[in-house]
Amino acid sequence: MIRFAVIGHKAVTEPTFTLNDMPGAAGRMDIMCRCINTSFFLSHDMRRNVECFLILKGGETEKTLVFSGETIRSLNPDERSAGAIIKKGLGTDAGDTFKKAADGIRIRAGGLKELLAEYPFAVLDENGTDIREAESLPENFLLSDHMNFTEEEEELIKDLPRYSVGPRVLHADHTITVLLNEFDRREAGRKEADRVEA
Amino acid sequence: MIRFAVIGHKAVTEPTFTLNDMPGAAGRMDIMCRCINTSFFLSHDMRRNVECFLILKGGETEKTLVFSGETIRSLNPDERSAGAIIKKGLGTDAGDTFKKAADGIRIRAGGLKELLAEYPFAVLDENGTDIREAESLPENFLLSDHMNFTEEEEELIKDLPRYSVGPRVLHADHTITVLLNEFDRREAGRKEADRVEA
Repeated sequence: MIRFAVIGHKAVTEPTFTLNDMPGAAGRMDIMCRCINTSFFLSHDMRRNVECFLILKGGETEKTLVFSGETIRSLNPDERSAGAIIKKGLGTDAGDTFKKAADGIRIRAGGLKELLAEYPFAVLDENGTDIREAESLPENFLLSDHMNFTEEEEELIKDLPRYSVGPRVLHADHTITVLLNEFDRREAGRKEADRVEA
Repeated sequence: MIRFAVIGHKAVTEPTFTLNDMPGAAGRMDIMCRCINTSFFLSHDMRRNVECFLILKGGETEKTLVFSGETIRSLNPDERSAGAIIKKGLGTDAGDTFKKAADGIRIRAGGLKELLAEYPFAVLDENGTDIREAESLPENFLLSDHMNFTEEEEELIKDLPRYSVGPRVLHADHTITVLLNEFDRREAGRKEADRVEA
């Protein structure tokens, strides 16, 4: 399983936002929507081996939504469709453990600290190891929205391995696309090696 | 200059569509919006050396909108913002030659045939040369939306070089992201080579 976690520093945690103003009133929820798109969509197919965690920090209590490619239904690639599903997810009460909000979508209260206790994440960082040069890639990647990691977040992630997708700093959703292309190539390379060996 | 041209087979050519239903009534205009996003946005910067042509075929007369990174203003990364600018562009009368519709945006009547007469395009194709393996990359790439090229289009492009971005078939916008990452890496490699030589 490949996992992406994206921190939405201002992204709202209540389902009352309007789909007509996701960049403004919803706290750059548009970025979260695009990360959902790039995590799952292939041409006429979905990536079933990906999970995408949205850590929403723009409310009184932090909430985390997780989308699972394996079980998600009725997701369309446009931002508005992803926004509608996020709204639906946020309509479910968030407790201490993940609870189903819809097919393929779960929610809980809590954020980065809780997630780091469960999975070993790597961090995207322009000064990190180039993903093309890495001998193997970690499975779980942490990204930020349009804002830098806060001091508190940096303290939580200071010992995590860091990776870069190239010489330019990209938006979170574009970074996910480049990472998945690298995963695709490595998987195809392994299959080809198996085929030659057999 | 790097140029992307994306064919929107059903994308409408009149500015009357609603931003609330770009995938449906506007003929998958959401795909065009995402291609604009991935053509131009860097983290806190824009790609000034890119042009993106949208070939809209869902109306009585084909129209082409071109966005130029060098001169574009007031573009935000969300789909709705790109959609609003496309609407604005389509509000300008389209003649035989490109005419300014707004800062950085021009429009004309005509489509693929006219564009191919002006620039030597390469085509994205899963069976094409891997962009990582190519000794040099062409500057201009043609992509399709969610539909395959039509027979008529295939006839126009049958002799053009073909390139692939990897083992999986991606959405047009994701393909642009992967291509630009390859361009970024090659440019950084050239700069590094120049530095070492100096």
